[in-house]
Amino acid sequence: MMKAIRFYPPAFDIRVESVPVPRIQHPDDAIVKVALAGLCGSDLHIYRGHGGVTQVHTCGHEFVGEVVELGSSFEQAVDGRPALYAKLKIGDKVVSPFTSNCGECSVCRLGYTCRCPSGFLFGSPSLDGGQAQYVRVPYAGGTLFNLSDPSTWSSSMPAAAKEQALSAITDSSLLLLADILPTGVFAALQALNHPKVLPAITGKPWPSMIAADSDAVATMKPEDQILTFAIIGLGPVGLCASVSLIDMLETQRLQYQIIAVDPVESRRDKAQTIYDKIKSSGSASGKFAALSIEEARETVKTWTAGTGCTAVLEVVGNNSALSLAYDLVRAFGVITSVGVHGSPAVPFVGSQLYNKNVSFDFGRCPARAMFPMAFDLLVKRQDIFGSVGDSASLVEKVVSADEAVEYYAAFNDSKIGKVLFDMQV
Amino acid sequence: MMKAIRFYPPAFDIRVESVPVPRIQHPDDAIVKVALAGLCGSDLHIYRGHGGVTQVHTCGHEFVGEVVELGSSFEQAVDGRPALYAKLKIGDKVVSPFTSNCGECSVCRLGYTCRCPSGFLFGSPSLDGGQAQYVRVPYAGGTLFNLSDPSTWSSSMPAAAKEQALSAITDSSLLLLADILPTGVFAALQALNHPKVLPAITGKPWPSMIAADSDAVATMKPEDQILTFAIIGLGPVGLCASVSLIDMLETQRLQYQIIAVDPVESRRDKAQTIYDKIKSSGSASGKFAALSIEEARETVKTWTAGTGCTAVLEVVGNNSALSLAYDLVRAFGVITSVGVHGSPAVPFVGSQLYNKNVSFDFGRCPARAMFPMAFDLLVKRQDIFGSVGDSASLVEKVVSADEAVEYYAAFNDSKIGKVLFDMQV
Repeated sequence: MMKAIRFYPPAFDIRVESVPVPRIQHPDDAIVKVALAGLCGSDLHIYRGHGGVTQVHTCGHEFVGEVVELGSSFEQAVDGRPALYAKLKIGDKVVSPFTSNCGECSVCRLGYTCRCPSGFLFGSPSLDGGQAQYVRVPYAGGTLFNLSDPSTWSSSMPAAAKEQALSAITDSSLLLLADILPTGVFAALQALNHPKVLPAITGKPWPSMIAADSDAVATMKPEDQILTFAIIGLGPVGLCASVSLIDMLETQRLQYQIIAVDPVESRRDKAQTIYDKIKSSGSASGKFAALSIEEARETVKTWTAGTGCTAVLEVVGNNSALSLAYDLVRAFGVITSVGVHGSPAVPFVGSQLYNKNVSFDFGRCPARAMFPMAFDLLVKRQDIFGSVGDSASLVEKVVSADEAVEYYAAFNDSKIGKVLFDMQV
Repeated sequence: MMKAIRFYPPAFDIRVESVPVPRIQHPDDAIVKVALAGLCGSDLHIYRGHGGVTQVHTCGHEFVGEVVELGSSFEQAVDGRPALYAKLKIGDKVVSPFTSNCGECSVCRLGYTCRCPSGFLFGSPSLDGGQAQYVRVPYAGGTLFNLSDPSTWSSSMPAAAKEQALSAITDSSLLLLADILPTGVFAALQALNHPKVLPAITGKPWPSMIAADSDAVATMKPEDQILTFAIIGLGPVGLCASVSLIDMLETQRLQYQIIAVDPVESRRDKAQTIYDKIKSSGSASGKFAALSIEEARETVKTWTAGTGCTAVLEVVGNNSALSLAYDLVRAFGVITSVGVHGSPAVPFVGSQLYNKNVSFDFGRCPARAMFPMAFDLLVKRQDIFGSVGDSASLVEKVVSADEAVEYYAAFNDSKIGKVLFDMQV
């Protein structure tokens, strides 16, 4: 038997219970002994009863741990199957993305792992989650990242550098790989790589930046290459998006200004503290301001001479955030929405979208596919991601699983930020 | 005095009248003597009274003609101004995009010419249109394309080749540059260059195709690189999008299948005839089918094993077309919408967009910026664009301006396809 944090419908009912340890059900399964499990904002959808969930299940889609049992598929290499089926061993340290994915179908092969037709969301009625001492991972060879053997997921970092990086990295920061860090990186990556953003990045006007033989209407001026971004929502994912965006902009030596927006002062303070920390390490040269919604509206106008943002990262998942994103974005701008949107109709009429030539990228992060990029950032910015409980930390506290009931309630009431459960104490 | 086709509110009231010839009002103006003026589907918005237009004005936003008068800005070169202010001469043959644009502001410098804050739509209450014997073009140095002097708009084509191309090109095909051809090219260009389409094009999965040091989850198979497109709406713009898309796919030697969708049989027939003509010239190797809506739904399923289209080009501008585009597109697919959308709310709830990871590119074509690309295609495919009145022609008939009243009515009743007015007979 094992300890597990379980949800009882219809809402607000979390119980820490003793349940059977999961077993291998399929040759591709792995059983992972969970070290740390995260409590995520999207867990609150189910907690509050918004998901319409009617089934008791084990919560949690963020976990890091150690492989303790493997199905028979892991016994020998089979040509064409994901490398992990040949290489994963008992005792390896692993982190899982928030959904399982086979890693073999056409959707996974294109890198769209979060939409694998065989995949399930951990911590849902379809698949018991990681807020337990043990968790069963389906299609484990396609799903898991093997932290103990970087050769299985990265070719760009020398093996010695990887090992050194892994030894210096904290367990609580590895947990961020499960969801929030890759989701932040995904938002930043989409915003920076959209064709409508490329003229400002490349200095070549539309469409000559993608059609080399197409001559420009006019010559761009240096000020046309200042990129302005808004990040709406400064919860943990918004903060990850902010760190990732700054890192990409600095790596590409671009000129930028970022307006980080949240109605909650403590979240703005954290965003500003994180930016200041990056700046003090010499890695942030752009403008940055963490602002309330009304301040943001004014500042976007002032900083862009009324034109609006090059791109807006929407990391909230409701219509107020989408409408604000529309108001802040420039004509021919991009809205990258990684917020989890629900059943309300989107708040736009067709002419608004036509008249502003808006582009949108909606949807869930393919966390498994984003892992190598997210891991690089995690290593690079351990000063931000490695800490627990200080003013720049994404993780506020690590607590015992036995305290789950009170911490679910406190998290739901915004009395505490990101909490991790230590599942083995 | 001159002949002009004028709109009288509230609706269905077109009059061919004698009005004063326009004069230079600003040093940047040019007066163009119109040879041909087009009747476009979007003219019907005003004609039907949908635009809420309450002012009498001269119609038309598609015209090709000859410069007969220039403002004083064209007398000498001024450093930093568009080349045309120094180079445009009386007698030069010009075509105008459907909106004016200054060519100098930050919006124009980025190539987003159709959203120039100083620009106006020709043939609207703000700016008299081109269905007249003469038309005043504001910011003419930023707006016009000088067909007589290709050095002002293209550096890639040798001068001799350009002159030869121009001499072989028909006037009625040049008219297509004003709106429908660049709009079709714009739709195809956006669809093919979206990051979510790049994995299938490059053979490198998300996100390694844009983040070179990011290792892929799995190896792609050859069949993952077959691109499937739907084009919804086979009016003149949809046909241009189809020709442009095929040209880009062939140039890049990509494997593709295109499903062209329209409820009207005669439009499907024309789309199929055009494809067959391209194929018979040896320039189309992909699969192509022009289908009704229900046939398209089935065929997308069959051709993609249920996955859906890589990208959908929406060239209609209403909610039925947007909803169909959503149904046909794959998860992590792209919807490029160049249809002119009106006041209805867009027909999606947030979870639909999140759950399918859909991307949208909405909005109007920056026709002035797209001109060099569109012109190259016009030259390349004179076999399609150069004809009038045959089964593969985009232009159905060239008529006298005196017949405007009956042709507006016939066009409104779908009794005739694209009509051009010869303004000088």
